Amino acid sequence: MNYKIGLIAGDGIGPEVVGEAKKVLDAVAKKYKLGFSYTDILMGGCSIDATGVPLTDEAIETAKQQDAILMGSIGGNTSTSPWYKLAPELRPEAGLLKIRKALNLFANLRPAYLYKELKKACPLREDIIEGGFDLMIMRELTGGLYFGKRHTEEVDGVKTATDTLTYNENEIRRIAIRAFDIAMKRNKKVTSVDKANVLDSSRLWRSVVEEVAKDYPEVQYEHMLVDNAAMQLVKDPKQFDVVLTENMFGDILSDEASMITGSIGMLSSASLNDTKFGLYEPSGGSAPDIAGKGIANPIATILSAAMMLRYSFDLDDAAKDVENAVQRVLEKGYRTIDIMPQKNENDAENTENVKQVGTKEIGDLIVEEI
Amino acid sequence: MNYKIGLIAGDGIGPEVVGEAKKVLDAVAKKYKLGFSYTDILMGGCSIDATGVPLTDEAIETAKQQDAILMGSIGGNTSTSPWYKLAPELRPEAGLLKIRKALNLFANLRPAYLYKELKKACPLREDIIEGGFDLMIMRELTGGLYFGKRHTEEVDGVKTATDTLTYNENEIRRIAIRAFDIAMKRNKKVTSVDKANVLDSSRLWRSVVEEVAKDYPEVQYEHMLVDNAAMQLVKDPKQFDVVLTENMFGDILSDEASMITGSIGMLSSASLNDTKFGLYEPSGGSAPDIAGKGIANPIATILSAAMMLRYSFDLDDAAKDVENAVQRVLEKGYRTIDIMPQKNENDAENTENVKQVGTKEIGDLIVEEI
Ligand SMILES: CC(C)[C@H](C(=O)O)[C@@H](O)C(=O)O
Ligand SMILES: CC(C)[C@H](C(=O)O)[C@@H](O)C(=O)O
Repeated sequence: MNYKIGLIAGDGIGPEVVGEAKKVLDAVAKKYKLGFSYTDILMGGCSIDATGVPLTDEAIETAKQQDAILMGSIGGNTSTSPWYKLAPELRPEAGLLKIRKALNLFANLRPAYLYKELKKACPLREDIIEGGFDLMIMRELTGGLYFGKRHTEEVDGVKTATDTLTYNENEIRRIAIRAFDIAMKRNKKVTSVDKANVLDSSRLWRSVVEEVAKDYPEVQYEHMLVDNAAMQLVKDPKQFDVVLTENMFGDILSDEASMITGSIGMLSSASLNDTKFGLYEPSGGSAPDIAGKGIANPIATILSAAMMLRYSFDLDDAAKDVENAVQRVLEKGYRTIDIMPQKNENDAENTENVKQVGTKEIGDLIVEEI
Repeated sequence: MNYKIGLIAGDGIGPEVVGEAKKVLDAVAKKYKLGFSYTDILMGGCSIDATGVPLTDEAIETAKQQDAILMGSIGGNTSTSPWYKLAPELRPEAGLLKIRKALNLFANLRPAYLYKELKKACPLREDIIEGGFDLMIMRELTGGLYFGKRHTEEVDGVKTATDTLTYNENEIRRIAIRAFDIAMKRNKKVTSVDKANVLDSSRLWRSVVEEVAKDYPEVQYEHMLVDNAAMQLVKDPKQFDVVLTENMFGDILSDEASMITGSIGMLSSASLNDTKFGLYEPSGGSAPDIAGKGIANPIATILSAAMMLRYSFDLDDAAKDVENAVQRVLEKGYRTIDIMPQKNENDAENTENVKQVGTKEIGDLIVEEI
């Protein structure tokens, strides 16, 4: 089988981590006798530098011709980079919003789980994370405040800015169905998060999700207010399986969830439309401060490639293979700097058998395991 | 001096905790030779039961005649209480939103700090909270999505719901000034949280806050995206002093911040307008499941009363007195059930010298210390 993969290396550490993921994909291709052809797609700051805009129409067309897209990261230092002197719709992040909408990538899946080996990096108390946790944030990605009408005007000489939060029942239903479908393959629980005690959009959200829930009698369904969800994630992340929510709440909660794992450099994400097409990217940012130093953690991107194999290409075995390879490399004690045990923890068990390696080395080690 | 205090006991544990705070206020009145006159004000579920609406116009008028208001909590179990069968604008929480707007309580202050004595209850890892943390969330409370136009309609037969997020520069400026003023009395740092890479309202927010910051050269000012703020609160709460943000982000982040202290039953809050008037309430909810059992923690309400003494009545000594009394009762080992050390932690140090007491007992103990 042949698959067309678009590569958006992007900015900051993007090119480095995508490079490692490509090495891993090549190893998978060899082992499983698959053909992967890669096409580079410009997006973000590098696209601004080359074309003046963060995403050209040609780039979108090229993206549409792929079977899936693997992305590194986009954007730079918002205080110092000249990209952030541009109008908002010309900044690197605008490219990301544009591609999400253009490719109708409404379903954003962000897994957050605790790696046994990286438990010490978890900011939560040991008794809270005993037994681990494994949750999947399902964030709506093409609606709400992100894509509503907005404008800034003077009202009686007073500057006034407005954004709009709109959802219709179809947008809610399709993401809810995705969430329940995925819950069926996981631990059969969906927590839908909203602010139904205040927002009309949340009340519609809740009523549509409740309808969808009826078609999944096996799935335990509950709803939770967003403020409470922000608390429960810290208090007891184990209680969650699939967390379903709208765009802005999902942005906040998925980052909170990835932080409580303590290893954001390990977390992948997928943005899907209603075909098999998807855009896969690490959860972390472009980390301009460490770009080019060869120390970035490529594992999140490699695991994003694994998600791509699973969700877009239905290559479950190959996906599992990549995930196992990552697991074994961790078990053998290899770590990039971001997931090294803290030196100030004075129990020896921590640093024993743990070896710090760079971006390329850990990529090579993962390739070896495949 | 005489002060008129409105008491909104409300629902759930509200009447119990307000009762204890009143006892403490009476002790303060005696010691400092002050006159406190109390007026009960109906709001929330109890008002629905008595009048059909969560807040009557007469109740608002009565509230306006007070020097300050002390509130317990409002609302009930959203799944089982008949209040939640009513239209949204008739539910208990609508009363709270209405009074905030009617009294122009735009500045919501929510302190979140770690009690040395209650460190074990903190969900964060010990090395993260070493040395404690002490932050103040300053949430805008009368604008944004909470008070924007909203409606649900059918567009081509498809149910569509819209909420609007609007801020004008004056609304932003007055809360920003409050935040910087308070930072000057604290650790002289303000972190303004927004989503300026997406929202027009956030871009206006950021530009106005930046202007205000110029008038406070002594205050260290930074801005942070809301998704990052949700992460940083868990990763390193020590980095924050005053966190300034809009209504919805403030709702989410203040609850996250209160949860990371591990002792939400200890956290007070103040909602202020541009006079000395304020509404003071505990950060926690109405906890209908434990209402009437005599086990609720009244300390958050008692500390809210202390905030009232300080911010509305300028009685700094009396406020400090109440706070010290609470501190001493904790030091002596008295705890309500919500802040008892976990039994499953097998280090003896925890439970030694710690005595569980009820709502009234801890109230009495605090009164004794005054
Ligand atoms: C870069 C930004 C616009 C984006 C978002 O808010 O969606 C990012 O934070 C994310 O979560 O992918
Ligand atoms: C009850 C609800 C409307 C309220 C809010 O969201 O403001 C509460 O969560 C709070 O934070 O005071």
